[in-house]
Amino acid sequence: MVMFSDELLRNSSEIWRKFLPHRFLIEVAENSISREKFARWLVNDYYFVKNALRFMAILMAKAPDDLLSFFSESIYYISTELDMFKRNAEKLGIRLNGNIDWRAKAYVNYLLNVAYSGSFLEGFTAYYCEEKAYYEAWKWVRDRVRSDNPYIDFINHWSSQEFEKYVNKIEAILNPLAEKHGEFEKEKAKIVFREVSNFELLFWDIAYGGE
Amino acid sequence: MVMFSDELLRNSSEIWRKFLPHRFLIEVAENSISREKFARWLVNDYYFVKNALRFMAILMAKAPDDLLSFFSESIYYISTELDMFKRNAEKLGIRLNGNIDWRAKAYVNYLLNVAYSGSFLEGFTAYYCEEKAYYEAWKWVRDRVRSDNPYIDFINHWSSQEFEKYVNKIEAILNPLAEKHGEFEKEKAKIVFREVSNFELLFWDIAYGGE
Amino acid sequence: MVMFSDELLRNSSEIWRKFLPHRFLIEVAENSISREKFARWLVNDYYFVKNALRFMAILMAKAPDDLLSFFSESIYYISTELDMFKRNAEKLGIRLNGNIDWRAKAYVNYLLNVAYSGSFLEGFTAYYCEEKAYYEAWKWVRDRVRSDNPYIDFINHWSSQEFEKYVNKIEAILNPLAEKHGEFEKEKAKIVFREVSNFELLFWDIAYGGE
Amino acid sequence: MVMFSDELLRNSSEIWRKFLPHRFLIEVAENSISREKFARWLVNDYYFVKNALRFMAILMAKAPDDLLSFFSESIYYISTELDMFKRNAEKLGIRLNGNIDWRAKAYVNYLLNVAYSGSFLEGFTAYYCEEKAYYEAWKWVRDRVRSDNPYIDFINHWSSQEFEKYVNKIEAILNPLAEKHGEFEKEKAKIVFREVSNFELLFWDIAYGGE
Repeated sequence: MVMFSDELLRNSSEIWRKFLPHRFLIEVAENSISREKFARWLVNDYYFVKNALRFMAILMAKAPDDLLSFFSESIYYISTELDMFKRNAEKLGIRLNGNIDWRAKAYVNYLLNVAYSGSFLEGFTAYYCEEKAYYEAWKWVRDRVRSDNPYIDFINHWSSQEFEKYVNKIEAILNPLAEKHGEFEKEKAKIVFREVSNFELLFWDIAYGGE
Repeated sequence: MVMFSDELLRNSSEIWRKFLPHRFLIEVAENSISREKFARWLVNDYYFVKNALRFMAILMAKAPDDLLSFFSESIYYISTELDMFKRNAEKLGIRLNGNIDWRAKAYVNYLLNVAYSGSFLEGFTAYYCEEKAYYEAWKWVRDRVRSDNPYIDFINHWSSQEFEKYVNKIEAILNPLAEKHGEFEKEKAKIVFREVSNFELLFWDIAYGGE
Repeated sequence: MVMFSDELLRNSSEIWRKFLPHRFLIEVAENSISREKFARWLVNDYYFVKNALRFMAILMAKAPDDLLSFFSESIYYISTELDMFKRNAEKLGIRLNGNIDWRAKAYVNYLLNVAYSGSFLEGFTAYYCEEKAYYEAWKWVRDRVRSDNPYIDFINHWSSQEFEKYVNKIEAILNPLAEKHGEFEKEKAKIVFREVSNFELLFWDIAYGGE
Repeated sequence: MVMFSDELLRNSSEIWRKFLPHRFLIEVAENSISREKFARWLVNDYYFVKNALRFMAILMAKAPDDLLSFFSESIYYISTELDMFKRNAEKLGIRLNGNIDWRAKAYVNYLLNVAYSGSFLEGFTAYYCEEKAYYEAWKWVRDRVRSDNPYIDFINHWSSQEFEKYVNKIEAILNPLAEKHGEFEKEKAKIVFREVSNFELLFWDIAYGGE
């Protein structure tokens, strides 16, 4: 039987190919990315992480009892990224409270609204998508990067074994959860996965290209 | 100027007097509580903690940016209580999946609904109330208890310096937050504080008296 | 194939038998109900209707596009009950802003929380339960009542053809919706139906017996 | 004393000037709008109305008791727009299930999320903004249009006395509500008003200009 997570990835593969690798990632790996582009990514991604925490929290409120520890640990784990952002922003001389691209806000509002209004399966699928996409993106960079890369903290974080285990855990929860659901519910979750995939692509476009 | 937290406590003092100390707490301190009563408390409080995590998560989703780390840490901190319950339940030979009193469910649904439908100030006030009430209740016990008390883990946890600091942190967030609000909003929060105070009292009644 | 609504009703039949008829309903039909009991019902049910509107609104926010007109019309239809309460309370000399039994609040908070945190199927099943229970309860009364009964407005309203059609519409939406879902989702909805059934029984107990 | 609604409008006046009138509105008034542009507006606005109903429903769930009838009637009133869209789409030979611009979705997700996560005042302010903006936009058109304009149904609807009364009612609820709140809460609501104003402008840009 095909695993639900594999179905999701296959069903959105043409979108994922566009950001694995995205030009932004290539230039980060080569350390040729412009300061302006990197700063834009940093500011928007810091905003994203703060709201991803809210998104996870809404999901946690709807989660079954046996996932409460998982969510508590995961929210705590992701919240440590906030310090990573602050530390690196200071080191790189970038101000974190820059302008947020309105499309990054659109992504965030989409996620929050799926968590509030959608089924738990839809929300959890969105969660898997955004974390999996980040892992794959930064793993691609890590496999090509030199250790003196100025962005190594971010690269190491999202491609670490710890982060890989975290993403695998989400996948290991998602797959049996999906199997308990009928086709109707699974089809809706697949649509969510595609929407989030498109937003992931958009996010790199925002960082690289600006307005 | 009177602090909001003091106003809340004074405004509900006649309710708090009924559980500081409640007969249940006296008998726990004396180690004269019946096994049946303690088991009833354990099972219902385990259920409460799981749902308090959901309650905190809903609040977190509405919280301003500068409270996201606080909520991440607090949710993680409270989630460790789940293990304390499991460990002690096993030690005491009590099954955690016993019947939940429907009034404990009513308390939980009240909290969840305040978090979803109420203002952030109302929700945060409810949060302060339930954590403060627990700290005061177990601190009362701790000051009277012998170290070989079989429930010492619970007593120590909720009367610890760490828990005290956690409750003080909630208070230190609540007071300036309340001051930013008009009387209309503060009055609504005071009503919430009284409702939660009554539920705290009820919770001890459930544990002690059953149906 | 057994319809989902039939399964729900059969699965909770021993609860429904306790309120079809409840002593409260018998005495309303006989016009022997005490003024105090009727006033208690009136005050608590007015509170219930206001919150049932909120409950329906939360469900509407999660509803698929093709149910938006249904919800708009249904919310409007149920909101007209508010005037029926005001009109009759005045006629009967009962003040509507009396004390709300805390158990009626518990029922309301349960419904609101199912709508916020549960799946749309769970919420819609709760909705079917409370409306169907009211129709059956008052239809029982109508079939036994004399036309000069002082509560005839309420009796006529909830046993009217219009209300019957409304309940049948809910049922006609619920059944195909449920069939699109897997067993896992349907089982959760059945549990909700039982919980709401118990609250419906409790509601008559509150009205009849007070504290 | 300056009314809150006046403050809001003044504070966003430079945004409103950009759509009062927008080129889209001018061309509708002149009946020179291209079929493609009008169809794009129709399809996206139909999508907007469906989600505006959800937005109003979330607000209704948080509303105080004395606004429940207002919301029931308003949701019902706005739901009748769905038929107006269907009727006119058929008459004009436009298919309603066309592509939704992703920026229209972003607007909708913003509104839904303000309603879910924001205070009631923030949500209600957003509601006032989008309805007031529509009234003013279409009133501008009505004052310039000939009665044989093919879009007269839409123009008449949103510039009607009934719609004007509806918008005035929202304003009459908003102003005293805002006055009960402190500056902190009012400032947050002003930011929401600006955000929604920008989305209203964007919406006309979408209709007129496409991607």
